[in-house]
Amino acid sequence: MDIKAFDKMNYGLYIVSTKSGDQTAGCVVNTLTQATVQPARLLVTIHKDNQTERLIEESGVFAAVALAQSAQMELIGDFGFRCSRDLDKFANWAHTEDENAVPYLTEQTVARYSCRVVGKLDAGTHMVFLGEVQEAQVLEEEDAMTYAYYHLVKKGLTPPKASSYRPEPAVKGYRCKICGYVLESDTLPEDFICPICKRGSEAFEPVSAE
Amino acid sequence: MDIKAFDKMNYGLYIVSTKSGDQTAGCVVNTLTQATVQPARLLVTIHKDNQTERLIEESGVFAAVALAQSAQMELIGDFGFRCSRDLDKFANWAHTEDENAVPYLTEQTVARYSCRVVGKLDAGTHMVFLGEVQEAQVLEEEDAMTYAYYHLVKKGLTPPKASSYRPEPAVKGYRCKICGYVLESDTLPEDFICPICKRGSEAFEPVSAE
Repeated sequence: MDIKAFDKMNYGLYIVSTKSGDQTAGCVVNTLTQATVQPARLLVTIHKDNQTERLIEESGVFAAVALAQSAQMELIGDFGFRCSRDLDKFANWAHTEDENAVPYLTEQTVARYSCRVVGKLDAGTHMVFLGEVQEAQVLEEEDAMTYAYYHLVKKGLTPPKASSYRPEPAVKGYRCKICGYVLESDTLPEDFICPICKRGSEAFEPVSAE
Repeated sequence: MDIKAFDKMNYGLYIVSTKSGDQTAGCVVNTLTQATVQPARLLVTIHKDNQTERLIEESGVFAAVALAQSAQMELIGDFGFRCSRDLDKFANWAHTEDENAVPYLTEQTVARYSCRVVGKLDAGTHMVFLGEVQEAQVLEEEDAMTYAYYHLVKKGLTPPKASSYRPEPAVKGYRCKICGYVLESDTLPEDFICPICKRGSEAFEPVSAE
């Protein structure tokens, strides 16, 4: 089996979110598709280690947004490389709530969809949710980000599965704005490369112990 | 609900095929995604009226190819706008068989995947198949066709569902090379527009009754 064959498949790039009780979660996925037209139903596949997957199981609802081609890497860093258990991902980004009280991003996004889960399929490491669309709205006329554009033009990397996330330590050092990795050091070498997402020192910002 | 929001989703373009007994079938889909990496599993969603869906139910196996960006509209016409019950779709196009004896196209394609069905989800009008990948191969280094490229650059249309296909009548007239529609007439008006796929008279070729 030549796994490079899978690189020939094309995808968009989306953030799927949900809310259960007072907990919210969201993550980047490339696996949102429309399954049926009448009624409108969407499919989304999410790794079971993701907090978003667990909370969708609880709440039975999810929202999804299609990212704009101009979406910032820092946004994808927060939603794709960090864990909703350690971070209120929506805190730093403009958002509002749908009729299910699920938060979704209102900027850097071109369309949004709100769904109620009507079916699911256990795919092994991932769960596939079938959602009936309750709301759908164009947010911007701009082109949507494709996974190819994210990789080839934005030089983005594939987000790790949630189980390999590191909680952000309360330390003094330098934090990667892309993936959240913190280098515990008084200085940041100019040629330093992030061990998680492979960005250079220009992606880092100083952080202080709280 | 604003259905234009669904146009913001990005897809590739694929042909999914299968074989049950001595019957083969194949159709164009935009809904192939990778669900899991370990083991490699793919999801594909197919309208239940399609012969391909019925034969996958019987055989439990399918193949898929990612179309090349340069794939001909006539190929998409055969596989997207006609029915496998009326036409041996593979007869006119270079193909071979995978280890399950399922035919797949070897030209105008950039990658191919062969799967055994390990799960399915009834989505209403469509069936979702989860396939475990048995074979995967890069066929060409060229870019794959995206659904956006097919619509915007190639001016392609959305294939109808299978129940609206018309069997090709054995008549004298002019046949649309894109969708197979036959105008029963001795002459083809220069300004004629195909009622199925909306192409002009340049898409038509003369056919004779057998």
